Amino acid sequence: MRGAVLHAPGDVRVEDRPDPTIERPTDAVIRLVAACVCGSDLWPYRGIGTRNGPVPMGHEYVGVVEEVGSEVRNVRPGQFVVGSFFASDNTCEICRAGYQSRCVRAEGLGAIGTQAQFARIPLADGTLVATPEMPADDLVPSLLTASDVLGTGWFAAVAAEVRPGTTVAVVGDGAVGLLGVLAARQLGAERIIAMSRHESRQELARGFGATDIVVERGDEGVARIKELTNGLGAHSVIEAVGTQESMMQAIRATRPGGHVGFVGVSHDVALPGSELFWSGVHLHGGPAPVRRFLPELIDLIVRREIDPGQVFDLELPLEQAAEGYRAMDERRAVKALLRP
Amino acid sequence: MRGAVLHAPGDVRVEDRPDPTIERPTDAVIRLVAACVCGSDLWPYRGIGTRNGPVPMGHEYVGVVEEVGSEVRNVRPGQFVVGSFFASDNTCEICRAGYQSRCVRAEGLGAIGTQAQFARIPLADGTLVATPEMPADDLVPSLLTASDVLGTGWFAAVAAEVRPGTTVAVVGDGAVGLLGVLAARQLGAERIIAMSRHESRQELARGFGATDIVVERGDEGVARIKELTNGLGAHSVIEAVGTQESMMQAIRATRPGGHVGFVGVSHDVALPGSELFWSGVHLHGGPAPVRRFLPELIDLIVRREIDPGQVFDLELPLEQAAEGYRAMDERRAVKALLRP
Repeated sequence: MRGAVLHAPGDVRVEDRPDPTIERPTDAVIRLVAACVCGSDLWPYRGIGTRNGPVPMGHEYVGVVEEVGSEVRNVRPGQFVVGSFFASDNTCEICRAGYQSRCVRAEGLGAIGTQAQFARIPLADGTLVATPEMPADDLVPSLLTASDVLGTGWFAAVAAEVRPGTTVAVVGDGAVGLLGVLAARQLGAERIIAMSRHESRQELARGFGATDIVVERGDEGVARIKELTNGLGAHSVIEAVGTQESMMQAIRATRPGGHVGFVGVSHDVALPGSELFWSGVHLHGGPAPVRRFLPELIDLIVRREIDPGQVFDLELPLEQAAEGYRAMDERRAVKALLRP
Repeated sequence: MRGAVLHAPGDVRVEDRPDPTIERPTDAVIRLVAACVCGSDLWPYRGIGTRNGPVPMGHEYVGVVEEVGSEVRNVRPGQFVVGSFFASDNTCEICRAGYQSRCVRAEGLGAIGTQAQFARIPLADGTLVATPEMPADDLVPSLLTASDVLGTGWFAAVAAEVRPGTTVAVVGDGAVGLLGVLAARQLGAERIIAMSRHESRQELARGFGATDIVVERGDEGVARIKELTNGLGAHSVIEAVGTQESMMQAIRATRPGGHVGFVGVSHDVALPGSELFWSGVHLHGGPAPVRRFLPELIDLIVRREIDPGQVFDLELPLEQAAEGYRAMDERRAVKALLRP
């Protein structure tokens, strides 16, 4: 089959890779209908972190089940499925508490690489959720977002304890931040302040439910959030970047007793204990347990109550994956969808 | 009047200080019935931090109201009162959300110094809670704990979301940690693991409800907690020290999706963002909003359902405050009560 492989920073190639097969009786093999490039894929693409090439890329996916292992009960060949970017058994104590991304048997999909024609999905029963029927083609992009970027934005809003009638600020105008806006709206936030200085992203944010846009960053951004909230700060802040500046911006923009939901994969961040102590905020985040939210998100999408697929502003054949990376790296695209 | 003053590290003196008076119409002046030395008083006593002598000391207190300002409505002269170590109006948006220690008009009692015969309490209506009647003398130590050390241990357990049937670990065997054990028990924890290597404190912890004692610290302590919890970590961890080691111990001893309640005043702590991200824990803490819990804690104490006053293992006349500091600094005493 064909699949994307990162050979070195900036060097993504679509090449022949071995066809995946059932390796364990709990596996499924799916034929990818769509995959995409994640903001977190840009870290290794930019040479940051520990992943060294050549490595298969991609961890977001929707597809049709081709084959299942002998122990798989919940999905069957021919079904359209959405899965999380972490495989999980969905039965252990941690999964049952809603933290499937930290399942005792969790397996990242990063090493498998879903920017490809086919993928082996471990722990298929716990990881994949089938749609009620074969979805209309125009729903595919939205269903694909549920696999990570919507699930992650949703988790950020839940982690930030967004409640009806509250004020939410969103740090980061990438696809996750934008879908954090959508999630906050669905969870009933009254005021949603998107922090963005890019017009096209501001427009998307407004479309998803943002009521205010703040273009300032850092301390100025914080001051602006305070101005908009009687000097107190937002009840909830979604952090969707993962840098020291964005984390401090999020913490400082939150009122005492308020909640920060952070989902930007943390890079070179050290949180000063004393400031955190005196801030009085709640901090929660990490790799989103997307599986927790999949049934609800799929339902909202197939009933056409939300349209998160709008974050894809570039669609390419899989063979042109490299251009998807380039466009996102250069911020010409918010998010690139790949069709195998 | 007489009051304790820190002149330099290690140098606490009880000396003549001006009698406090009503300065603002929202003030009350109380005659102290008892005060005490806080673990956090030991930081400046040891020369750590920014407080330079001479400074009045003490922020925990119970007393009898002597005089109130013209706008005070909730307390009157002659009443026995317990107050928080932060004055708060208890009416602002932050107070109403339960974060009185970060009231928009919050004032620390540290600058006032309650290790003294009298004290001016700002924002008396929002800060002081009167007991239903003049309490029996043997209840005074317990009521005094409500002012900070019990209120703080209680907040830590609430911040760590202790729930019936769960497993809680407590890092720190000072008075706050020990009363965190008591709070966890009251909140219904099934298993309470106290981390302590001091026999007398272990005994107190067991008396307050600890079911297990772990003497190991750092990584070994974490490994021991994991062993006791099927390899997962505790549901809730109370952190009551404030050092890098204790914070990391708390985070690492918590299961994914679990909660850390941290109340040790943070000193030279920097939390690695990446580890926090992948831990999947909830983090909440800071200066305890003691006022939120005072009515409930006073009620539990006067009905003799809890006996937190047991943390005082040294009682001295105010004039011997210096010995109270020395005994706590040398860990000869858990907590020293001072009688003016």
